[in-house]
Amino acid sequence: MPILREAPKEAEIVSHRLMLRAGMIRQEAAGIYAWLPLGLRVLNNITRIIREEQERAGSVELLMPTIQLADLWRESGRYDAYGKEMLRIRDRHDREMLYGPTNEEMVTEIFRSSVRSYKDLPKNLYHIQWKFRDEVRPRFGVMRSREFLMKDGYSFDLDAAGARVSYNRMVVAYLRTFARLGLKAIPMAADTGPIGGDLSHEFIILAKTGESEVFCHSDYLEFATPEATVNFDDAAELQGLVDRWTSLYAATEEKHDEAAFAAVPEDKRLSARGIEVGHIFYFGTKYSESMKAYVTGPDGKDVPVHMGSYGIGPSRLAAAIIEAGHDDAGIIWPDAVAPFKVGLVNLKPGDQATDAACDDIYAKLTSQGIDVLYDDTDDRAGAKFATMDLIGLPWRLVVGPKGLAAGTVELKRRDGGAAEAVSIDSALARLIG
Amino acid sequence: MPILREAPKEAEIVSHRLMLRAGMIRQEAAGIYAWLPLGLRVLNNITRIIREEQERAGSVELLMPTIQLADLWRESGRYDAYGKEMLRIRDRHDREMLYGPTNEEMVTEIFRSSVRSYKDLPKNLYHIQWKFRDEVRPRFGVMRSREFLMKDGYSFDLDAAGARVSYNRMVVAYLRTFARLGLKAIPMAADTGPIGGDLSHEFIILAKTGESEVFCHSDYLEFATPEATVNFDDAAELQGLVDRWTSLYAATEEKHDEAAFAAVPEDKRLSARGIEVGHIFYFGTKYSESMKAYVTGPDGKDVPVHMGSYGIGPSRLAAAIIEAGHDDAGIIWPDAVAPFKVGLVNLKPGDQATDAACDDIYAKLTSQGIDVLYDDTDDRAGAKFATMDLIGLPWRLVVGPKGLAAGTVELKRRDGGAAEAVSIDSALARLIG
Repeated sequence: MPILREAPKEAEIVSHRLMLRAGMIRQEAAGIYAWLPLGLRVLNNITRIIREEQERAGSVELLMPTIQLADLWRESGRYDAYGKEMLRIRDRHDREMLYGPTNEEMVTEIFRSSVRSYKDLPKNLYHIQWKFRDEVRPRFGVMRSREFLMKDGYSFDLDAAGARVSYNRMVVAYLRTFARLGLKAIPMAADTGPIGGDLSHEFIILAKTGESEVFCHSDYLEFATPEATVNFDDAAELQGLVDRWTSLYAATEEKHDEAAFAAVPEDKRLSARGIEVGHIFYFGTKYSESMKAYVTGPDGKDVPVHMGSYGIGPSRLAAAIIEAGHDDAGIIWPDAVAPFKVGLVNLKPGDQATDAACDDIYAKLTSQGIDVLYDDTDDRAGAKFATMDLIGLPWRLVVGPKGLAAGTVELKRRDGGAAEAVSIDSALARLIG
Repeated sequence: MPILREAPKEAEIVSHRLMLRAGMIRQEAAGIYAWLPLGLRVLNNITRIIREEQERAGSVELLMPTIQLADLWRESGRYDAYGKEMLRIRDRHDREMLYGPTNEEMVTEIFRSSVRSYKDLPKNLYHIQWKFRDEVRPRFGVMRSREFLMKDGYSFDLDAAGARVSYNRMVVAYLRTFARLGLKAIPMAADTGPIGGDLSHEFIILAKTGESEVFCHSDYLEFATPEATVNFDDAAELQGLVDRWTSLYAATEEKHDEAAFAAVPEDKRLSARGIEVGHIFYFGTKYSESMKAYVTGPDGKDVPVHMGSYGIGPSRLAAAIIEAGHDDAGIIWPDAVAPFKVGLVNLKPGDQATDAACDDIYAKLTSQGIDVLYDDTDDRAGAKFATMDLIGLPWRLVVGPKGLAAGTVELKRRDGGAAEAVSIDSALARLIG
């Protein structure tokens, strides 16, 4: 693990600094990063949770390629409209290609090639794939990179009412996803931008270092996350949850309405910095009409399907989670995304009893499926503690000769609480829980 | 699942035909494919097994980006040497980039930025990422595509002797990987090509439809796969395994030596078609010297590290596994990579008892972690059986009113054996095993 003691100069925001210092990422070109082993573990934890909640909501995973044909984008009219953020490529035969910045066109092509009847609807297809947007000035590390990982999902319904149910399904899935990632995300009405359409929400988390100002009713922070037992086939239940989560004032700067905000009781008016962690759209028949994605309806007539798209950026989320959870010493990972659950610190490598105790603890924890990072380097204790604080694992377990002589090890939570001297058995019991 | 009844005309080889017909993949451009849900499940099973065997052998996973800087490749001298297979790209600021066809340069850059001492060696870093090679005439589906998934690993050692141990470690890991994928792969001495270096093996599987002729001693087909208990830190044990697996004659067409082959006993001379499923290289200090990846040795002097690289193509493997396992009716998946273990066929959807029995079986199997594909469509029985044969799941379980009246369902292995009428309990017991 390549740990940096000094904050790199080029990093303007705390997540970028901490990710570089903790050896999570390495810049390979402007806005293009390699994910080092520690960073990849976090990224995989994030995508695992996203997948679980997508599957629970009935979405089906596929995997579209990164390189697309320009002609596909000419069908929707977006090839010329997209501008310089699209990375345009010519292959050896001088065919016009592009590195996909999003996949509405391609998924519509896949849909129209295989679905013909309303009986096969609704469908929600998602994938998790690398995208490229050629930002003019990439910065903030993986928060605004050019090559980034994205979960993008697409819903297909017979009509607007069905599409609304699909949209609500994703609102609920996203609320659950962000909560499991340890984040309080609030859906806020948003502009649709180049995706098009007439209904859209951004999911915003509050963080002091957020990129933009947001305004909302503070009760949102106390709202309960929808349960895992939500019936995703029950349109009324979904609508009830979405109604509740959109009942109070919440808006980004772009959509902010001073008058409406003034109607919020003064002690509930929350204005804070926010980070966008998800963005969902309903855009009706925008793509299905131009690209001829029709299904036969119950009356035997062909109609264009109603579509929505649903995006979360796992690479961006890794940074957003750090923006929302850190202190002066480093990262504070939520348990669900931490690269390891436990940091095991051997205070005197080479000491037979200490080594044996550490090996035994390591074996017992890993045999229970608990991820342990074992520090048996020769660094001094202070440096080891600083490294553990920097990389922010939920638990720190320190083993040294003095403690062992008294029958104890030292257990500490990264997110607060004092270090406690406890017996090895009691430490194991708490970690295995 | 978009099943095609007819073989698509453009598909020249059986794996391509069957993958298109079974709805595993869809072509999005020449040599560029989307992985539909069924195909993605296979691809994920393949990468899971690769990861498990890499981790067992001590490799550490990271994830490098797809887009690389041209300047990085100028350091090694390969930017100009690589030719038209490299997809060259200019970004909005007219910087020269490329879509990585392989990652020797980038991983060397990552290594040199963080490892300074021989004490941190050996290291083996791998990633599983999409690559691009702009084949002049892409064909054979995902067997020779332009955008393809690749596991590429890279070893770093202080000297040639250490690098040999790292190389052997990967030989053993690859033998285990291919065996778990249901393949008999034989390591054959190979040319090093544009990677460079002086030691290289291709792993070849035999398949009637293979791309090239190979020649080997037939005893290789009976060799036992190295056990999971191999000690990957024991250089002598590794060398013994590699010696055994390279003791007999085995060569591709390029390296074939008629005289040496003639020395193989006549009844053991096997000449057959083969498919390359892995390729490994030792190339010494080729990249570390040109790119200045030095470590301080035990004597305090800086020396360039010795490197090797190790590639497996999971997307190509999906096709190779089909080439090695199919019949006239369709694919025959090895259990470990099958997209589902069981195909459950409801012969009379709408019939209350049949539906109830199917629902009950489905619930019991999935609660045990068994992946079940449930066919409750209105197709006639013959069409359902043909689809199940086409997609090649290991087990077919057929439930119909007649059988139920007699207290039985019908269980059948895809890879042979007759359909057996058994009780539901006994079917469940055999599937849950």
